[in-house]
Amino acid sequence: MPRRPGPTTRLSVTEHSTRRDAPRSREDRIITEEPLEIRLRWPGEDATRVWTTMRTPGHDFELAAGWALHEGWLPREGLDTVAYCTDAALPREQEFNVVTVSLAAAPPRLPSPLPHHHSSGSSACGVCGQSKIEQVLEVPRGPRWAGPQPTEDVVRSLPGRLRTRQRLFDRTGGVHAAGLFTADGTAVVVREDVGRHNAVDKVAGARLLAADPVGQAVLVVSGRAGFELVQKAVAQGTGALVAVGAPTSLAVDLARRSGLTLYGFTGDDRTVRYA
Amino acid sequence: MPRRPGPTTRLSVTEHSTRRDAPRSREDRIITEEPLEIRLRWPGEDATRVWTTMRTPGHDFELAAGWALHEGWLPREGLDTVAYCTDAALPREQEFNVVTVSLAAAPPRLPSPLPHHHSSGSSACGVCGQSKIEQVLEVPRGPRWAGPQPTEDVVRSLPGRLRTRQRLFDRTGGVHAAGLFTADGTAVVVREDVGRHNAVDKVAGARLLAADPVGQAVLVVSGRAGFELVQKAVAQGTGALVAVGAPTSLAVDLARRSGLTLYGFTGDDRTVRYA
Repeated sequence: MPRRPGPTTRLSVTEHSTRRDAPRSREDRIITEEPLEIRLRWPGEDATRVWTTMRTPGHDFELAAGWALHEGWLPREGLDTVAYCTDAALPREQEFNVVTVSLAAAPPRLPSPLPHHHSSGSSACGVCGQSKIEQVLEVPRGPRWAGPQPTEDVVRSLPGRLRTRQRLFDRTGGVHAAGLFTADGTAVVVREDVGRHNAVDKVAGARLLAADPVGQAVLVVSGRAGFELVQKAVAQGTGALVAVGAPTSLAVDLARRSGLTLYGFTGDDRTVRYA
Repeated sequence: MPRRPGPTTRLSVTEHSTRRDAPRSREDRIITEEPLEIRLRWPGEDATRVWTTMRTPGHDFELAAGWALHEGWLPREGLDTVAYCTDAALPREQEFNVVTVSLAAAPPRLPSPLPHHHSSGSSACGVCGQSKIEQVLEVPRGPRWAGPQPTEDVVRSLPGRLRTRQRLFDRTGGVHAAGLFTADGTAVVVREDVGRHNAVDKVAGARLLAADPVGQAVLVVSGRAGFELVQKAVAQGTGALVAVGAPTSLAVDLARRSGLTLYGFTGDDRTVRYA
C-alpha cells in the first residue's frame, strides 16, 4: 500500500531548556507538509498541470476546487469531478499528491500561459507576452456580498472562535487556519493548513463541493492579510476579511477598490478597520 | 517622476477598542507590498521573465540576486549586473518593480520550463514533461558548512538578537525578518520583508553583491521553518537554520538528509533541535 500522509507527523527531537540542566530527548508531533500538484481538465481537452503548492494533506479536493474558484477558472456549469490522478507514470509516493479538477465545461478564462525559456521577444528586455505583473495584480471579479455585516463586537470575537476550532494547531503549534462565519459570528466552515492561502482555498472548496454558497459575511484568517488573501476574499464574494495580524499596503488598496471590509490586528480587546 | 515605493505606507484607519467608548480615527503605518518581477539574462540570450513575487520594496537587487543563487542559477563566473529593467513597454508605475539579473555566463541549469496550456501529452492524464512535483522537491546542491556550530545558549539568544534589528517590524508590526549570524551570535546581515522567503533571499543577495561568502554558521528566521526555507539554507551553504516558530515534516526530512542543523520553537528560554 502506498503511504497516505496524515496531517501530522511524529518524530524524535531534543529539547534544550533553561529549566533543565541537560537536554531532553522526546517525541514531538509536527505539521505535515507535502506537495500537491493540481491538474485541470475540461471536455475535449487533455489535463494540464497548472500549479503545485506545499500543503498539509487532508481536504485535498477542497483545496483544488477552492483554488480553481479563486483563480476564476470555474465555468457557470461548475465542477464535474475532483479526484486523485491515476497517472501510471507517477512515482508511488506521490499517489496522493496529484489531484485532477475536471470542469463541466471550458473555463471562462484559460490558465495563464506561464513564461518559459526561449520565448521570442521584441521589447527592450527581449520579453514577450502579457506582463506577468499585470496578471499578478489582477482584480478578481466576484459577486458582491449583499447580506448583513458583523458588528465590531462580533469582529473582535472571531479570532477566538476560530482558535477553538484549530485542532491541528493544538497538536503542533505551527499551522494556519481560515474560517467562514456568518454576521452573528457562527462558524460555517474552518480549515487548517501549513500554508495560509491553502487554508482559504480549502474553506471555499468545502462550500463548493457541498454545493453551498461560498461567499459569507466574514472570512477570518489566523495570520496577516496580504494582497492574495484579499483577492481570494473578493473572488469568493465574501463581505469582510478579518485578520489576526497586520495588513499590507496592496491588500488595503485592493479591499478599498473592491468594496471589501478589511480588519487587521484583531483580538478580544480591539480591531483596526483598514477598509 | 514615477513613484518609487518605500518600505512602509501611511494611511487613515479606524480603531475599535474595548478601552474606549467610541471608535477612534488615526493615522497608521503599514508594510508596503508590491510585486517584483525578476528577469534573467546571460551572454547571447535575450532576457527571460522567470518569476514574480510580492515583496516589500527595498534591497530589490539583493532579493533578485539571492533568489537566483537559491534557485541554482548562478554560474561559476557569477553575476554581471543587476538593474531595474528599462523596458519602454513597462507601465510607469511598475518602473521599480522589474529587475533584470544579468549572469556573466550561461547558468549551470536552465530556468525550468514551466507548464503552459496546450502542452502535448502522452501519459494517462495527458500531461507531458518533467514532473512538477519532482522539481519542487529537488534537493539543492550547496557547499557544506565546515566552520564552527553555535552552542544551544547562542541559539536561544538569536531570535532576540534578530528582533533588535527589525526596524520595519517596529514601525508596522507585520513583517518577517531573516539574518545571517556567526557561531558566536554576531549579526552579519539582517533583512526584512513581507514575505519570509524574500527576507532569506535578501540576506543571501546582500552577501553576494558585496562579493562576500554567503554561507554562514546560522540563518535565523522570524517565523516557521518550511521546506523551501531549508532548501535555501542548504543552497547557500549555511550550517544551521534557527526558526522562532514550528518546522514542518518535509523541512525536517530535508534538513536531516542534507546535514543541516535545524532548530524550531526558539526563544530565550528554550529551543528544540529537529535535525
